[in-house]
Amino acid sequence: MAITVVGSIAFDAVKTPFGERERMLGGAAVHFALAASFFDVVRIVGPVGEDFGEAELDVLRGRGIDVSDIEHVPGGRTFFWRGEYGWDLNSRETLDTQLNVFEHFAPKLSPASCASEVLFLANIQPALQLAVRRQCHDTRFTALDSMNLWIDVARDSLIEAINEVDCVILNDAELRQLTAKPNLLSAAQELISWGPGGRRCVVAKLGEYGAALITPTGYFSIPAFPLETVVDPTGAGDSFAGGFVGYIACQRPGSRLTPALLRRAMAYGTALASFNVEAFGTERVERLTFAEIAERVAHLRRMTTFSLDPKG
Amino acid sequence: MAITVVGSIAFDAVKTPFGERERMLGGAAVHFALAASFFDVVRIVGPVGEDFGEAELDVLRGRGIDVSDIEHVPGGRTFFWRGEYGWDLNSRETLDTQLNVFEHFAPKLSPASCASEVLFLANIQPALQLAVRRQCHDTRFTALDSMNLWIDVARDSLIEAINEVDCVILNDAELRQLTAKPNLLSAAQELISWGPGGRRCVVAKLGEYGAALITPTGYFSIPAFPLETVVDPTGAGDSFAGGFVGYIACQRPGSRLTPALLRRAMAYGTALASFNVEAFGTERVERLTFAEIAERVAHLRRMTTFSLDPKG
Repeated sequence: MAITVVGSIAFDAVKTPFGERERMLGGAAVHFALAASFFDVVRIVGPVGEDFGEAELDVLRGRGIDVSDIEHVPGGRTFFWRGEYGWDLNSRETLDTQLNVFEHFAPKLSPASCASEVLFLANIQPALQLAVRRQCHDTRFTALDSMNLWIDVARDSLIEAINEVDCVILNDAELRQLTAKPNLLSAAQELISWGPGGRRCVVAKLGEYGAALITPTGYFSIPAFPLETVVDPTGAGDSFAGGFVGYIACQRPGSRLTPALLRRAMAYGTALASFNVEAFGTERVERLTFAEIAERVAHLRRMTTFSLDPKG
Repeated sequence: MAITVVGSIAFDAVKTPFGERERMLGGAAVHFALAASFFDVVRIVGPVGEDFGEAELDVLRGRGIDVSDIEHVPGGRTFFWRGEYGWDLNSRETLDTQLNVFEHFAPKLSPASCASEVLFLANIQPALQLAVRRQCHDTRFTALDSMNLWIDVARDSLIEAINEVDCVILNDAELRQLTAKPNLLSAAQELISWGPGGRRCVVAKLGEYGAALITPTGYFSIPAFPLETVVDPTGAGDSFAGGFVGYIACQRPGSRLTPALLRRAMAYGTALASFNVEAFGTERVERLTFAEIAERVAHLRRMTTFSLDPKG
């Protein structure tokens, strides 16, 4: 089963207390695709400009990602973002955003991308997310990310898009803003109650504190993997989504989305996010191995387990 | 084995989005003592004024707490704090602090309080914490809390006090401030490296996100118990400490402080904190039962467990 991801492909300029990069491969769809590529075939859909070359494509191809639906816009320039992080990496300032080819992006999916059984709608304009969702008739699992901007300026179409997906992945502030519920659990439950049949799950990304999974019947929480050195948090959320959605995608056809499966997926997402932040941009994930991922997931399990038994 | 706690006994005025109280029993030592009272005998040490009467003492006595070392200052008034919380309860403003009898507090411990095997130094001036620590020769476990104020104005004596305790309980911002390390794990490890023989453990309180335990050999993380309605967060950290230290205290004499024991203690601390915030001040914990605590700890375990086994 393949995964299709639609979203931004970018060049990022990032400064953190640990150094800086003037121009590196980035974007939500890229971080997602690299993380998900450890689990399944990934098809990436998004626009790039003439400044996007073989070196960047090779990073994606190197992880087996299908780049044939990357749209090369003649005369265009690739989406560009410049940001700087504060001393504890919890605050970041956007210094420059150049939409470039993204400004007039209208996703065009090939039959192969439409036929993927799993779809991730990375953070783009909700109307585009909805248009993509409606092109993919055979998906058995669709997840969506968004951001405060769209909650502010396109709330209705975001809600429309949310109502056609199985899983919403947002950070806690966005969940509160979207539902106007100050309490995280209430906000997630409100989101689950929207739409016919209810959402299958909501993932609340909690940044350095980890993530929570809220389903109609349960709650699961997992901390971020503790690291002594976080070099660059850019793309952590999309790497999480790539690990999470990737693990769901790689199950056998017909597998049920059990709570146990979703929890393991949360652990894989957490592991991928932790590797992503260990170096700038895609540098760490490019050289990552599946054995390292599995080891970190096992480590995560050990550091979250406790026994009720006083002899345990 | 008894627990001695030294710290503030207060009247609080609190306003949250869910209501307000003009004057209710509060203070770090009170919240700690009530939480710890579910596990062991607690002796509470701290000053009160003439406005502190039988009604307040009865709340403590009602939970079996030994109040004989509460110092009644003739002509004095009890410590008073007034605060207001923002809409999502993550921000709070202190509107008034009246030290009153706390201004000239010099802890006087009875022989019984000195003889407790477990000691909790709630957030007070570090020099007083140190003076108390040195009166208690037989303690087998001492934990300490502090705050940003003391890191600012009494850093050296705080470090001196820290060097004579087994466990430091601080929130993540305080850990970063105290060690000047922006990374939480590095900050905790720095703290463990201080002092002869090393600290046994550091507990990082993460507010609504839970808590982490860092020991010389390991890391454990537990989320806060998810609640749909948090009414008043005041005292959550001290209730956590009460459950955590209380669970450690109630072990058989000679029990080793194993990682498994400390992890269970973290779960009990988390449960107590979650009950504390369900109502104003001490209202919820006053009517709490041990069965409710045990049920919540079991629930916490279920919501943090995942299996590595794809068939699990």
